[in-house]
Formats: sequence, C-alpha cells, structure tokens
Amino acid sequence: MKFTKMQGCGNDYVYVNCIEKELENSNEIAKVVSNRHFGVGGDGMIMICSSDKADFRMKMLNADGSEGAMCGNGIRCVAKYVYDYKLTNKENLSIETPSGIKYLDLTTENNKVVEVTVNMGSPILEAKLIPVISDNDKVIAEPIDIDGVEYKITCVSMGNPHAIVFVEDTKNFQVEKIGPSFENNKIFPDRVNTEFIQVIDRNTISMRVWERGSGETLACGTGACASVVACVLNGKTEDEVTVKLLGGDLKIKYDREQNLVFMTGPAVIVFEGEIEL
Amino acid sequence: MKFTKMQGCGNDYVYVNCIEKELENSNEIAKVVSNRHFGVGGDGMIMICSSDKADFRMKMLNADGSEGAMCGNGIRCVAKYVYDYKLTNKENLSIETPSGIKYLDLTTENNKVVEVTVNMGSPILEAKLIPVISDNDKVIAEPIDIDGVEYKITCVSMGNPHAIVFVEDTKNFQVEKIGPSFENNKIFPDRVNTEFIQVIDRNTISMRVWERGSGETLACGTGACASVVACVLNGKTEDEVTVKLLGGDLKIKYDREQNLVFMTGPAVIVFEGEIEL
Repeated sequence: MKFTKMQGCGNDYVYVNCIEKELENSNEIAKVVSNRHFGVGGDGMIMICSSDKADFRMKMLNADGSEGAMCGNGIRCVAKYVYDYKLTNKENLSIETPSGIKYLDLTTENNKVVEVTVNMGSPILEAKLIPVISDNDKVIAEPIDIDGVEYKITCVSMGNPHAIVFVEDTKNFQVEKIGPSFENNKIFPDRVNTEFIQVIDRNTISMRVWERGSGETLACGTGACASVVACVLNGKTEDEVTVKLLGGDLKIKYDREQNLVFMTGPAVIVFEGEIEL
Repeated sequence: MKFTKMQGCGNDYVYVNCIEKELENSNEIAKVVSNRHFGVGGDGMIMICSSDKADFRMKMLNADGSEGAMCGNGIRCVAKYVYDYKLTNKENLSIETPSGIKYLDLTTENNKVVEVTVNMGSPILEAKLIPVISDNDKVIAEPIDIDGVEYKITCVSMGNPHAIVFVEDTKNFQVEKIGPSFENNKIFPDRVNTEFIQVIDRNTISMRVWERGSGETLACGTGACASVVACVLNGKTEDEVTVKLLGGDLKIKYDREQNLVFMTGPAVIVFEGEIEL
C-alpha cells in the first residue's frame, strides 16, 4: 500500500489515496500502520475518498482503529494532499467529514500548498450543550476547585468540549499532574479537553492542552479555536491571535459578526512510502 | 534520501545504504529522521557502509544524534538488508562495529532472511570490569536493598553492565517504579541495565528490561544474553533458552565450552520510503 506521511503542528497521520477504491479492513490496517515501532507510526490513518456532496471526503481512523469525526490539523493535510498531488486545482475546497462539510482556503507557493485556512464553524457557549454542569447559562471565568486550588474556567464547545484556564506560565505548568483532575471532574459529564493559556500580548498566546483520553498532545486545533474565543470573551486578546503550541503555531480568527472561527496553519509532507500489508 | 524502516523485536531504526557514499551531517539527519512526529520515526538511524576489515560496516546513531556502539536487534536487520537487497549472497557475514567485528549466520527462505544468529561474544563476570562494587569477585545471587525490599542480583556485562533479578511475575511487576532505583544505586558506578526475569520452564523465560538512560524498552539483545547467562549460573535453566520480551522472542544459547553467547532472532522490513531533507 502506497502512503504519504504528513503532519500539521506535529499531529501526524498516514494518508492514503482511496479515491479509486476504498480500503477493505481499514480499521485493522489503521491499527497496523499507526504502530510507531511495528508499523509506519502515526496518530492514525486518514483516507482521502470521493464524495457526492463535496470536492472530497476524509475518513479518519484513530490509532486504535476506531473512527474519528474531524481533526483540524488532519483536514489541512488532506487539502495539501489533493492539491500537491494534482487531484484538484481548486484553491477553495469543500471536504465532507462525519462532522459535516468543511470549507478550506489554500495558500499556495510554486504550486504547493504552504498553509490552509479552515472554517471551523460556530463556537457553542451554552453550558448544557457543551456539556458542563453550572447554575449559569454560560461558563465564563467561573471558579472551580481542582485538587484544593481555585482556577477560573471558561467553557466552549467546538463540536467537542473545552475548558480554558489562564495561567502565569505554560512552560513550567504541571499539565500532566493537573490535566486528569480537570478531565474527570464531575461537572463535565462527557469529560473535557483542558487548555492552559498564557497571554503573551493582545495577539499572541501560548497554549498547552490535555486531551480527554489522550493526555498531553503537541497540538489541538479545536482547542486553539476554543481558547481564542475564551480570550476574546474574557477581554484578554483581540479577535485575531497566534496560538503557540508545542507542535507549532496556529493563527485563529474569531469573526464575531458571522460567529465563526477560522483556523490557519501549516500542512507538511514528511515522507512517502510503501508498506506490504 | 531513500531509506528502509526495519525492526527486530520492536527495536526500530531507519536504515540507509551508504556503501557508495557516506552521509554528510549524519548526526543532524539522524535527529531529524528519528523524530516520531516530524520525521520517519525510530530509535535511531543505521548506516550500512563498506569496510576494509569485514564484509560490511554499520554506523549507528541514536535518536539524539549521538553515536551508538552496537545493537543486537539492529545488526540482525543490517544482515537482512544486505542479503535481501542482494548486496551480498553470503549466508555467513562479518560486520564491523565500534565494538569490534561481529559474526552472523543468516537463515533464509525464498531468498529472504527470516532469522539471524549473532555471536555476541563472551560474558564478563568480574565485578570490577562490569562494573559493580562488591566484596566478592563475582556478583551471583547477592542481596541488595532497593527501596526497603531485598532483591538478589546477578551481574553480567555483555559489553554493557546488566543486573538480573528473578521475580515471580514479570507481567504485573512495577518496572517503571523500581527500575530507576536499580539504575541509580551507588553500587553501579556506570549505572546499570536491569532485567526482571520470570522463569517459565527450563528452556523459557519472560523478561522485562529497564535500560539506563532509556527507561523500559520493548527489547534489549545484550540484556537477553546476560539474563540467560545469569539463569545458567543460578541453575534456573538449561543453556538454550527462549526469552520472551515485550517486543518478541529471542533465542539465546550460552555455549559454556567456548564461553560465547549466541543470539537468534527476527529481522523485519516494515516499509520503504523516501524523505526530502
């Protein structure tokens, strides 16, 4: 099976062209190829398929073989894949995902994609829909006791639940120690992804993220979007912000008029390969 | 740069044919390609080079770019590489390493290597040479206090220092908790690799390993050799033993007449690829 290994902010998947023919046993194949010692290695496998509703369709499988809905870092790589390999010459793309059709703008140089902007949709602030248990309709700078320390959280869903916490210094913050206590707190019925944010200036923040079920990761696209929405709601930043993640930078724009969040970031081809299955 | 990703018992390296031309900046390249999110991913990079003393020469770089001396799982893959890619048709090979010339026997099927036996040399039992601080010349079933619990250790060097400990049940043994306390105990001036061994029968043992500087790993070739020597010295097994590691099985033979240890195990091509540097 031919494949291309790609990454966006360190979120890395094995990409396979399935436009002509879909893979049989794709769940099994995803498990095999995702293994970092015995396979290609990656956070999962993304199949690029044809669609009757959009330009392309992405089918994403996690490293354990389960199906994923959407991945902001992954969908940018899908856009680079189809453009760089000349499966399309469009610079505005629609891509079908289990979370609906997503719209992307490609920035190209010398016929290669260098950056992709994704319309990540509208943030959800209603506590019940996130879900987070609260006496208020929205959770903005609300105190929470975690391991005996009071933090103030702002909660935002970008299709998945996020709790944003402002801290003095992300670099020395004990994400691994404190992340699990947020994730499993009883006010989050579906658990939660927690973003620890240090405001650097009105247009720059540093972020570390604890993802439910995964632990600390190098980057989280929806988390970066949710964090900028939280920054704006708390008056900490303007509505266009560079988010500095462990795996790289994302530029997030919270368009308050349209109530939409746009994410711009890199997409990189790491290498091409062929594996016998 | 074209490469082949190979693994032996889960110990995985990026293999590069450098017979015609050695890589410039190989230390930098090893760091880049070894990264599991931004590169090919692996425990390091192994260059296959020509030699004026042996059939081939292996140059091994760790993931941090530093040079490694020898790797039992890696050298088997070098043998498979040169045979499968028809760089030689010999089934007995000599390979130059910074630890001296190693001799290998290849087992082939349909012109492909399936298994390789490596002469791993003589075990060293003298405490001073291992090194381990002791009142005795050799350290065999000697008591040691680790975190308030008494363990009995047997120490063997296979070019690097090993402490072997017999336990009831490797599966539920807390290697991550206890490994560091062995590694940094004051009786090991160069620190130590610790093997936790469960004897299953006279020809089978289960092993988990804590490697100095690396933590728990899927496999350790010299550790498997040292463990079988320790088993024989303690009367626990015969001198031909299958060692069951997290990453796969190794067959170890301790030839007491010649005072040599032979290791037989798999070597697997995972995939082939090309990366732009």
